Amino acid sequence: MKHLLGIEDLSKLEIESIIERAEHYYNALENGKWDYRKLENKIILTLFFENSTRTLTSFDIAAKRLGADVVNWNANTSSLKKDESFSDTIDTLSAMQPDAIIIRHSEYGAPKYIARRVDCPVINAGDSWREHPTQALLDALTIRQEKGTLDGVTVAICGDVAHSRVANSNAKLLSIMGANVRFVAPEMLMPPELPATDITCFNNIEEGIKDVDVVMVLRIQKERMDRSEIPSDAAYFNNYGLTFERLKLAKDDVLVMHPGPMNRGVEIADDVADDPTRSLMKRQVANGIPTRMAILDMLVGE
Amino acid sequence: MKHLLGIEDLSKLEIESIIERAEHYYNALENGKWDYRKLENKIILTLFFENSTRTLTSFDIAAKRLGADVVNWNANTSSLKKDESFSDTIDTLSAMQPDAIIIRHSEYGAPKYIARRVDCPVINAGDSWREHPTQALLDALTIRQEKGTLDGVTVAICGDVAHSRVANSNAKLLSIMGANVRFVAPEMLMPPELPATDITCFNNIEEGIKDVDVVMVLRIQKERMDRSEIPSDAAYFNNYGLTFERLKLAKDDVLVMHPGPMNRGVEIADDVADDPTRSLMKRQVANGIPTRMAILDMLVGE
Amino acid sequence: MKHLLGIEDLSKLEIESIIERAEHYYNALENGKWDYRKLENKIILTLFFENSTRTLTSFDIAAKRLGADVVNWNANTSSLKKDESFSDTIDTLSAMQPDAIIIRHSEYGAPKYIARRVDCPVINAGDSWREHPTQALLDALTIRQEKGTLDGVTVAICGDVAHSRVANSNAKLLSIMGANVRFVAPEMLMPPELPATDITCFNNIEEGIKDVDVVMVLRIQKERMDRSEIPSDAAYFNNYGLTFERLKLAKDDVLVMHPGPMNRGVEIADDVADDPTRSLMKRQVANGIPTRMAILDMLVGE
Repeated sequence: MKHLLGIEDLSKLEIESIIERAEHYYNALENGKWDYRKLENKIILTLFFENSTRTLTSFDIAAKRLGADVVNWNANTSSLKKDESFSDTIDTLSAMQPDAIIIRHSEYGAPKYIARRVDCPVINAGDSWREHPTQALLDALTIRQEKGTLDGVTVAICGDVAHSRVANSNAKLLSIMGANVRFVAPEMLMPPELPATDITCFNNIEEGIKDVDVVMVLRIQKERMDRSEIPSDAAYFNNYGLTFERLKLAKDDVLVMHPGPMNRGVEIADDVADDPTRSLMKRQVANGIPTRMAILDMLVGE
Repeated sequence: MKHLLGIEDLSKLEIESIIERAEHYYNALENGKWDYRKLENKIILTLFFENSTRTLTSFDIAAKRLGADVVNWNANTSSLKKDESFSDTIDTLSAMQPDAIIIRHSEYGAPKYIARRVDCPVINAGDSWREHPTQALLDALTIRQEKGTLDGVTVAICGDVAHSRVANSNAKLLSIMGANVRFVAPEMLMPPELPATDITCFNNIEEGIKDVDVVMVLRIQKERMDRSEIPSDAAYFNNYGLTFERLKLAKDDVLVMHPGPMNRGVEIADDVADDPTRSLMKRQVANGIPTRMAILDMLVGE
Repeated sequence: MKHLLGIEDLSKLEIESIIERAEHYYNALENGKWDYRKLENKIILTLFFENSTRTLTSFDIAAKRLGADVVNWNANTSSLKKDESFSDTIDTLSAMQPDAIIIRHSEYGAPKYIARRVDCPVINAGDSWREHPTQALLDALTIRQEKGTLDGVTVAICGDVAHSRVANSNAKLLSIMGANVRFVAPEMLMPPELPATDITCFNNIEEGIKDVDVVMVLRIQKERMDRSEIPSDAAYFNNYGLTFERLKLAKDDVLVMHPGPMNRGVEIADDVADDPTRSLMKRQVANGIPTRMAILDMLVGE
């Protein structure tokens, strides 16, 4: 493993080894004991072409927890504004010899393009609607912590599946690991092609979450959608919002996940989001740190 | 002491112990000798919802002087822009388990709200017109260095008192420590309620600074005021600007302070601001570093 | 050497010793062996008043490669926006006692102005059209690596010479080191005064690059020029663009340099820019790191 560009490049064994390393760092953080200087003298360069502080901050903290230095490159004040070509910008940054590059970009496949041009490991922090592999890995860690395994677990991924890199990466990973994946979305928010062969699709949320172990609610990507697709927030909540009423159709010990940021009252009801026995949102965020530490350790530390 | 949310939460003993620790770091910085790694492996998260580089840079340097890592979270590129609720943003950042959070916010009581939701120490770097405790503490260190004590010292806080968190925190601290506090302001810039019981108010600057040991000039908070309150910069300077002429009314060894940034020619005359025997502005800024080191050390290092 | 404000302040001996130290760090980076903690406990403050991530990122990485902490002060969110005077801002930052200040500013002589006000070393990262000394030093390292010496090497600096701090600093340095310097530019882009006495000027590019060892192509500073000076990108390329056709007039082993960011198809043809046997662009960027490490080491580390 030289880069982490997408779940689609990973074998079952590689996914397992990342989750295990993440679990190791999860426990280490709990106990306050790990090698604080594992990545000392390493420089991690973040290139975020889309606004995101959630993922950026998570990577920033993960890198620093391992003693690395982080250099945040800012697309808004860069030479790209002076009409420099994207490939020249990448060549320039690569020539400065960072020890790893973390990239977020709205363009399909940008991380792969970069990985071909540079000498160091490249980590995809989200590109277009295609992949967000670290989110899928931290979600997998979260489910495994709660359910003991991913194998045979039924997961309903609900909402704006078509525009969601989280859905895409999660569906691939869960499918590889033997989970049963469902997509639950209105027809217009269902992707034209499915990321794995064994996904079952539902247009009706009541049918879609029936007897599932996990409901993974997606954020409505207002900024990506032509608004006309969805008549109103209230109408969406009425048809697809995750309420306790609907959650009763799932298994008794069903768990609720959301990658954040949440649109409360749109894709999820307040009381579901805030139920500490059901909702895993805070754990997901917390798991982002050890998961990203694991990935940085494996790509840069060895 | 778990957090530093405001001077109002501190006892006289706590204030003294912070100032003493600050003095310790002041001397340590002078001598170039202190424990550079006291906060090694600690991650300090700064959340600045208002523009400020002065205070942010001071905290940033203070944390790094103790070996901590600093993660600057940027409100402008955050998920708040994606309609995430403030409490969800805070819960998310808290789940990433920083070792301390430094917050500046325009809303009254935001630091307290955060302190209730998170597990780590919270440091108030200024909220609304309410409190700016680290400024009051560094000002106290400055006065004590010059006058030997705060007890019995007479301090006139002059200018836009109503909109000033600096005035508010300083008045509380000075009052607790036995100083005599005066507020000097036109009626419309006097606060509706006084932050301590023994403050004397003056609408006339000549009377207000008569025989005082220290004049603390406040910045006119143009960005907070309805401009109609003040007819013009020149009129304000004419009525309330600190000039050498006026300063003669104070004690012979009177000292002048200002939290910065200054509006020269509005609340203070150039020659007063630049007089090295009177003006403590640079010392105040310099004292910001050891004061914030002391607070970080006490909240995070122990 | 207390500051690095411009090439004009340096003697031949000083330039040589910087290049030698840069070469030392170049080799150290290649071998992965140097004193990672040379600047531990040092705080480097960057003050960039002009957008630039290329130079800022290079300094940021260089400082961190030596174990320093970097504090990036952001002009856009600073108190300057609150009408603070420039000198008050500088005095404030100086009072925080950083171990060095790196400054970029659009105003002529701003670095010198700052150096007179502060106690720490000041490094000029580019001011107005006057000086960009670290660029000239990394370019000198690059030429010396390829040609073995600067003495007697003929360098044609081509393009928007009048608006270029890169041209200015390079011309001074090369002249001091015994190189033959040519300026090649249309009359309206030729500077009114020459930075060194022995520069030869050419308005015609074919004559200007005849028999030279190095062509240093400059970026057309669109953002600095009144557009009317240049009729169109195509017309400029036609008259002054560096093509292989033109490059044949230079020596057989001619090398091509460009400080970046490039306007491809304006001042340089794609195939020239991308020719690995001719083009030194990536090496120039790579050399930025050891050159800036050398300067930081010499000014802060000793």
